[in-house]
Amino acid sequence: MSPSANPVRLGVLGLGRAFTLMLPTFMADSRVKLVAAFDPRPDARTAFAQTFGGRVHESAEAVCADPDVEWVYVATPHQMHAEQVQLAARHGKHVLVEKPMALSLADCAKMIDVCEVAGTQLIVGHSHSFNAPVLLARQLIDSGAFGRVCMVHAMQYTDFLYRPRRPEELDTAQGGGVVFSQAAHQVDIVRLLAGGEVSSVRALTGRWDPTRPTEGAYSALLTFANGAFASATYNGYGFYDTDLLMDGVGEMGRPKSRDAHYQTRVRMKTVTDEAQEAAVKTERNFGGSLFTLAATEAPDACQHFGPVLVSCEHGDLRLTPRGVQVFDENGSRFVPAVVPAVPRAEVIDELWTVARESRVPLHGGRWSQATVEVCLALLESQRAGQDIMLKHQVALPRH
Amino acid sequence: MSPSANPVRLGVLGLGRAFTLMLPTFMADSRVKLVAAFDPRPDARTAFAQTFGGRVHESAEAVCADPDVEWVYVATPHQMHAEQVQLAARHGKHVLVEKPMALSLADCAKMIDVCEVAGTQLIVGHSHSFNAPVLLARQLIDSGAFGRVCMVHAMQYTDFLYRPRRPEELDTAQGGGVVFSQAAHQVDIVRLLAGGEVSSVRALTGRWDPTRPTEGAYSALLTFANGAFASATYNGYGFYDTDLLMDGVGEMGRPKSRDAHYQTRVRMKTVTDEAQEAAVKTERNFGGSLFTLAATEAPDACQHFGPVLVSCEHGDLRLTPRGVQVFDENGSRFVPAVVPAVPRAEVIDELWTVARESRVPLHGGRWSQATVEVCLALLESQRAGQDIMLKHQVALPRH
Ligand SMILES: NC(=O)c1ccc[n+]([C@@H]2O[C@H](COP(=O)([O-])OP(=O)(O)OC[C@H]3O[C@@H](n4cnc5c(N)ncnc54)[C@H](O)[C@@H]3O)[C@@H](O)[C@H]2O)c1
Ligand SMILES: NC(=O)c1ccc[n+]([C@@H]2O[C@H](COP(=O)([O-])OP(=O)(O)OC[C@H]3O[C@@H](n4cnc5c(N)ncnc54)[C@H](O)[C@@H]3O)[C@@H](O)[C@H]2O)c1
Repeated sequence: MSPSANPVRLGVLGLGRAFTLMLPTFMADSRVKLVAAFDPRPDARTAFAQTFGGRVHESAEAVCADPDVEWVYVATPHQMHAEQVQLAARHGKHVLVEKPMALSLADCAKMIDVCEVAGTQLIVGHSHSFNAPVLLARQLIDSGAFGRVCMVHAMQYTDFLYRPRRPEELDTAQGGGVVFSQAAHQVDIVRLLAGGEVSSVRALTGRWDPTRPTEGAYSALLTFANGAFASATYNGYGFYDTDLLMDGVGEMGRPKSRDAHYQTRVRMKTVTDEAQEAAVKTERNFGGSLFTLAATEAPDACQHFGPVLVSCEHGDLRLTPRGVQVFDENGSRFVPAVVPAVPRAEVIDELWTVARESRVPLHGGRWSQATVEVCLALLESQRAGQDIMLKHQVALPRH
Repeated sequence: MSPSANPVRLGVLGLGRAFTLMLPTFMADSRVKLVAAFDPRPDARTAFAQTFGGRVHESAEAVCADPDVEWVYVATPHQMHAEQVQLAARHGKHVLVEKPMALSLADCAKMIDVCEVAGTQLIVGHSHSFNAPVLLARQLIDSGAFGRVCMVHAMQYTDFLYRPRRPEELDTAQGGGVVFSQAAHQVDIVRLLAGGEVSSVRALTGRWDPTRPTEGAYSALLTFANGAFASATYNGYGFYDTDLLMDGVGEMGRPKSRDAHYQTRVRMKTVTDEAQEAAVKTERNFGGSLFTLAATEAPDACQHFGPVLVSCEHGDLRLTPRGVQVFDENGSRFVPAVVPAVPRAEVIDELWTVARESRVPLHGGRWSQATVEVCLALLESQRAGQDIMLKHQVALPRH
């Protein structure tokens, strides 16, 4: 990425795992500059000052008030997103906020309102719907060559539930479990590919491990206003690994060990209690004693979120870590995605077009509120034992 | 298979495609002997007499009345199963009837009743739930090593809709489409793995090609009385091929060309009308001018019905064409299935234990009626737009 004369000046709230995963992007993509940050962890603040030469503040508010900050990247736990986004907007700052946007539709609505009143932009991400093969598949669909989308099938088997967690990440009432954290990715991908406007959701969720008492799995059927339907299944219990179907490439676009889930479970055996587990998570993050910088060299594949198949009238598209395999009336062919030179550069692409080219975000407030609505409907459908009809859905913005 | 002194003496009704697919089994498995048959096609009757030296009759009734026939194999179109099974039972003959058992629950109930009154046995198959890896997975579950079954995920993408068809195979009212013909396999597999007693079904079906106006795809969520749930997706529109995820092994256990679906669609282009299409189907069957005997040598893999994953409390089981890959707390290991020396020998295994060892069939009348109930519920759920509650479900018989 050639250095930019006018990088987007970011202030960061939360230097935890999400930030750590974005770190290679921030370090390598010259279209952004990290100018300020706040995290209650002093070690993280120190590391931030050392790595980026940015200002460290003593509160979230101070970051939002910092005149040098243009955009605030909110990477704090779910339950803080709503308040911090509003705080930033009230200080006239645009916001990039991590998924999920928030934990309730009311919070999403407030965030959208406050940003509108303030005239500030809102992008929700990173999520895996930013991934280049997802966007490529969307382009192929938009080309019209395959007719309308009829069905999307998505599945993802991970070790989500056995990575080190904060206590609230295992408590659904506080936004814990795979529905809030992982359906936020998968539903966003499925909506992006099927057109966006979900009509109804029927879902079943699984809580199978009493020691991790939150949703670790789900399977859902979605219908769409345009007649398409989708099936999305997620299992975070850490046995089978769908990355085996993705050429052995992991979610981060890098080769993954075949026994990665087993290793996760082995590590989990050293956990003694909640506090120690949360500490392990923290120490692996930026500024922590176990922190290691993820590779910044260009990955040789794109990030992905497991096997996704899009069935159109005239062909099927299978997303791979390197592009889209097309199966149609002419046989099969591979359409390569441009593997981003910087991991997750797609997030900065969208940020850049919004910040510097006055484009409408793909992952804006209303779009992302609709994804939250689907996630909440997953939980509600399990509780009610029936279809949940949706009311806040929006189509994909013309981009 | 060493020659049996007392083979089960079969009379066959319908020498079409189902029979053609069972032919290698019948020719190589000495536990059965084909002694009689009826099919309205004279060429098929001639071929039967030549191949098996069996008697050819002029009606279904004559086969059922033939004193040399012990079991009748009913391999006629769906809509004839109910009547012909009853006919056979009334003649005191046991029956092996192709899937689906019948097209309505009332018909299934009549078949069960008449067989009970006659004191005759009923097995429904072949279906792909007979496949060795399915039975192996069931054994692994029954061992208790993995705890209870929590979730089953099944998917299958085929060229079903573009293989040559009789007109009624494309008319749902007459039993056409993938729900009657293919869910009969997939649902039976899923039930067998999840315990059998489905509580509710929510499904969406797709009719995407107006020139083949029946269900070509579906996606379903099933809940089970034991708390498990399942997701099953089928797409018969002939683009993507899930056999690519099954080591390139096709449904019949043999290596499959990567462009098999493309070739199916190319062949479909030579179809001019319904009658000619039906004739093409017929001519490829036993006795037809395009008939070729499928390889009878031992396949090097088992038959299968696409990727199936069983998530248990303490491990995931992935069915493969050669066995079951286990992922659990100890890592991953492969449990090989015994690849049957004769294709579909598993059907004869069950037939033999019932006919000669007085065992209860796994795929008996009530079991198979329950699978028909789920298939009908798939269609009904799409119509009604809601969950369908089931009433005729039974658990897996203790075998
Ligand atoms: N897109 C992705 O791939 C991805 C990956 C992980 C997490 N996330 C998202 O990021 C968010 C954070 O999750 P995480 O796993 O990084 O959690 P984390 O616990 O690792 O990080 C949260 C950080 O926020 C800090 N923090 C706490 N209160 C704060 C405050 N008031 N102001 C500023 N910082 C504060 C904590 O000290 C910690 O460093 C979640 O919403 C999660 O969904 C996204
Ligand atoms: N298990 C499997 O793998 C499998 C595969 C294909 C078909 N099947 C099942 O087999 C059944 C037949 O389907 P198919 O594809 O073989 O159809 P088909 O049209 O190829 O064969 C049906 C045969 O029945 C004959 N027939 C018609 N009326 C008859 C009568 N009154 N008595 C005796 N024979 C009669 C026809 O002449 C034809 O030869 C269906 O229920 C289908 O679901 C199962």
